Amino acid sequence: MSLVKVIPLGGAGEIGKNCTAVIQGDDMILVDVGLSFPNEEMFGVDIVIPDFTFVMENRDKLKAIFLTHAHEDHVGALPYLLDQVKVPVYTSEFTHAMIRNKLEEKLDVRGLKLETLNPGDIVEIGSLKVESIRVTHSIPSTTCIAVGTQHGWVLFSSDFKFDFTPVDGKLSDLSRLTKLGDEGVVCLLSDSTNAERPGWGPSEKMVAAGFHRVFTQAPGRVLITTFASNIHRMQQALDVAHATGRKVSVAGRRMEQTLDICSRMGYLRIPADTFIKLDQTTNLPPHKLVILTTGSQGEPMSALVQMSKEEYSRMRIQPGDTLIYSARPIPGNESAIWRTVNRLFRMGVHVVYDAPTPVHVSGHAYQEELKMMINLTRPYYLAPVHGEPRHQHLYREMALQMGYPDHRIFTMVDGRPLEIGETNAELGDPVPCGRVLVDNAGNAGVTDEVLRDRSSLANDGIVIVTVALDVDNGEVIGSVGVDAKGYSGNDAALRQCAEWVWDALRNLKKSELQDVDFVRHTVADTARRCMIKKAQLRPLVVPAVLEV
Amino acid sequence: MSLVKVIPLGGAGEIGKNCTAVIQGDDMILVDVGLSFPNEEMFGVDIVIPDFTFVMENRDKLKAIFLTHAHEDHVGALPYLLDQVKVPVYTSEFTHAMIRNKLEEKLDVRGLKLETLNPGDIVEIGSLKVESIRVTHSIPSTTCIAVGTQHGWVLFSSDFKFDFTPVDGKLSDLSRLTKLGDEGVVCLLSDSTNAERPGWGPSEKMVAAGFHRVFTQAPGRVLITTFASNIHRMQQALDVAHATGRKVSVAGRRMEQTLDICSRMGYLRIPADTFIKLDQTTNLPPHKLVILTTGSQGEPMSALVQMSKEEYSRMRIQPGDTLIYSARPIPGNESAIWRTVNRLFRMGVHVVYDAPTPVHVSGHAYQEELKMMINLTRPYYLAPVHGEPRHQHLYREMALQMGYPDHRIFTMVDGRPLEIGETNAELGDPVPCGRVLVDNAGNAGVTDEVLRDRSSLANDGIVIVTVALDVDNGEVIGSVGVDAKGYSGNDAALRQCAEWVWDALRNLKKSELQDVDFVRHTVADTARRCMIKKAQLRPLVVPAVLEV
Repeated sequence: MSLVKVIPLGGAGEIGKNCTAVIQGDDMILVDVGLSFPNEEMFGVDIVIPDFTFVMENRDKLKAIFLTHAHEDHVGALPYLLDQVKVPVYTSEFTHAMIRNKLEEKLDVRGLKLETLNPGDIVEIGSLKVESIRVTHSIPSTTCIAVGTQHGWVLFSSDFKFDFTPVDGKLSDLSRLTKLGDEGVVCLLSDSTNAERPGWGPSEKMVAAGFHRVFTQAPGRVLITTFASNIHRMQQALDVAHATGRKVSVAGRRMEQTLDICSRMGYLRIPADTFIKLDQTTNLPPHKLVILTTGSQGEPMSALVQMSKEEYSRMRIQPGDTLIYSARPIPGNESAIWRTVNRLFRMGVHVVYDAPTPVHVSGHAYQEELKMMINLTRPYYLAPVHGEPRHQHLYREMALQMGYPDHRIFTMVDGRPLEIGETNAELGDPVPCGRVLVDNAGNAGVTDEVLRDRSSLANDGIVIVTVALDVDNGEVIGSVGVDAKGYSGNDAALRQCAEWVWDALRNLKKSELQDVDFVRHTVADTARRCMIKKAQLRPLVVPAVLEV
Repeated sequence: MSLVKVIPLGGAGEIGKNCTAVIQGDDMILVDVGLSFPNEEMFGVDIVIPDFTFVMENRDKLKAIFLTHAHEDHVGALPYLLDQVKVPVYTSEFTHAMIRNKLEEKLDVRGLKLETLNPGDIVEIGSLKVESIRVTHSIPSTTCIAVGTQHGWVLFSSDFKFDFTPVDGKLSDLSRLTKLGDEGVVCLLSDSTNAERPGWGPSEKMVAAGFHRVFTQAPGRVLITTFASNIHRMQQALDVAHATGRKVSVAGRRMEQTLDICSRMGYLRIPADTFIKLDQTTNLPPHKLVILTTGSQGEPMSALVQMSKEEYSRMRIQPGDTLIYSARPIPGNESAIWRTVNRLFRMGVHVVYDAPTPVHVSGHAYQEELKMMINLTRPYYLAPVHGEPRHQHLYREMALQMGYPDHRIFTMVDGRPLEIGETNAELGDPVPCGRVLVDNAGNAGVTDEVLRDRSSLANDGIVIVTVALDVDNGEVIGSVGVDAKGYSGNDAALRQCAEWVWDALRNLKKSELQDVDFVRHTVADTARRCMIKKAQLRPLVVPAVLEV
């Protein structure tokens, strides 16, 4: 029998851009095609997507794409891949509905093969069998993806938790998971995000108690900020508002879209007479209102952040408002979030962000839940993914404590194939893999050189030295121009820079002045030295040498 | 009787750059002259210091400066102020020793009046009396500063906690604090950083147990990263290393300096035969070693971060090393810290960052300690400082619960004087106040315009359009040059940009071409339109128009 290869193209050793290939013979499928968000060093980058080189090199093998759930880190890069390959995309009805807008922005969706694979469904793709199994998570219709191979099931846990009182009442399909275990799971690719957290995570339903307490005690309006895709959270806000006699409105485009799609499809039940438009809120007394808003990550253009700066035209903050911060800061966003929270406190808002009664719970499995998934499915090999190295490391330690031998636990790395044979498995040679940076205009492929220049520009600014050159006669025409942007030094240094360059050029021979590259180099070098000497700064220096 | 004014020039509604003026009649003193660190939007900014305009406007009144302790957020801006005013600086012998290096880098210290005011000392400054009272904190010789005014004591809590088992055995002077209360504290300016944390903070001594556990269990070297100024932490590492048969070395210039000063002055007791040089560590087996290192905030040039990138020449990470992360991330540094930790995990290091036994405790008072300070000193007015608005808000709520009436609690804001009269107090009109940004070369005064340009440069790059103009004859000489830096669009758009500008200039009248500003405007406007149209990007456009 041949090898089954499991190749993470993203999502292994990081949180974000989940994308994994499974290959058996000439059949390849992808599980998830997600994006991640730029870190603070990636200037001018909007999103980060996987490098699809390996997929394109094997495009003849690629038979289908499967999506576990509708979060951006599992589906967000799909438009960029479907732009290059046309294969069927299998996922639940709900997930299809949630991603449709984004696909339509970039592609002609009529040309796409969007196939429904609801929880419990199974489909054959060449020699592979793919089954979708419901698990609980912070978005509806989240599913494990089980890939039937000749060596047994390769099971993708997806993002999951075991919530016995989920808001939509739809429990994880533990029955099917145990049967998979009976049939033989050769490898479990498991969520490991919360491997740091001991015990069992609280149910999403716990949040209702926190909401209830705030809704009944708050003297004025209650604002709630959460992720725009957190439909369960919105449902609870609606239910508790209804129970406590408040009306609910929404501020923020993405949240409005989600609410619209989900209520139309029946994934969100809006209690009678509970929802009102934002411009109708002024007709009601403040203590009768709940407003759901985007901005939980401190995004500059979000409704909440604009409100905190008094720049949101559709609604104004009032002293006496209460804000429930019903989310968790994504690392890197902390400063922006706290700046927003502090501005709100200054405006007289009472912000509830760390209440004794929880106003947020995680959608990811804690340690005992991760162990439960192992216990249910009894995989031969374990491969923690959807976690940074620290999470993968702790998952490994946890599995060792459960008695797993070291050689059956694989710390997956993007681009390193896990090659599963009949009697053993090992990490194979790396395949082409990496990250592709997409700029604010949607252009994929911001280079490292561009990032380096941007970092340099950001920290020290730029000095532009302009020289006009009569190349034929080897003469400098006119004077030397110096412009600066983002430069924090003194103006005298800029004037001296022009003088230094002028002196340097005057000392060149005619033949040297006929060599544009040489002149350019002389100008840049002289200007740089002047900046260091006279301003103690190292701005980027651009010699703009014009041949006239 | 006249008003006593307490004016925070920094540190109120923020964590950092603590600096407060106290004025009675013609006598003004400053308590602390600290710096803060730039947020992620302050490109190319090294440190942030208070705006000293108000001090300079009242320099004839300024009689002395008092420093509570040697942390940067309380002393770091001193060189910048002493450059402009020469007044005596009172603080403990220890704090003087700690700040001396930094002062010497910028100033001739022989011209300065550095006066010793040890815990327990008292000095008269004009009509004011100033007393230093010992409290426990994460650095030795931390003191409250009590300022005796005609309306009673104005008490600066400084950063503090009530630690009954401090590492150096020097307890907070509760006796003197209660007597101050007896004598009458009119206003307490209290630390509020940990107002979110219920209960009473653990003693610094708790960390020894965590260290002991790791030192005895770790199979190889133990690295510890903490703040370079955390002398108590270093003491505990030395003591536990001695007890467990390990030797201690230090990696990182600032930590070496601290260790040197503190051991010379007797603030750090190095057990016999425990300390070794870094280059001697290779002679010992790994399990006999502890290495203290800088880099707890993920600083790019720190020893730990360089080790994690295999760029630190003096020492290399080995698989089997254990790192104790003995610090707390300062908000904004999280991503850089986790990147470092993840790199270390990948290199085979076991990182202990959230142990059941603590490996770090806070140096700031928790809620019950904050209440204890109030109970001991019984101030008439409360003014939470050294906290963001969220912390000040929670401190206020805490004080309300203790029975303080609302009008006796002041949420201090930088630049708003608290004006204390005989029978009442209120916030007066703002004085000149703000932040001054210091660039990497030490230049104070990076402007908002420079920051805006840097932000723009960082996100979208720059396009430079060069044109040579014969102004006298109203003619363009030669062609149009286009250069770009940090630009992520396509090259075709840059070529089109040159063409668009050329066409635009060709259509100008001779008189228009004789107007350099008009040409500059035309070039910039045309180039900008072309970039939006052809590249969907908005780089900064600089028209470099050379008059020849």
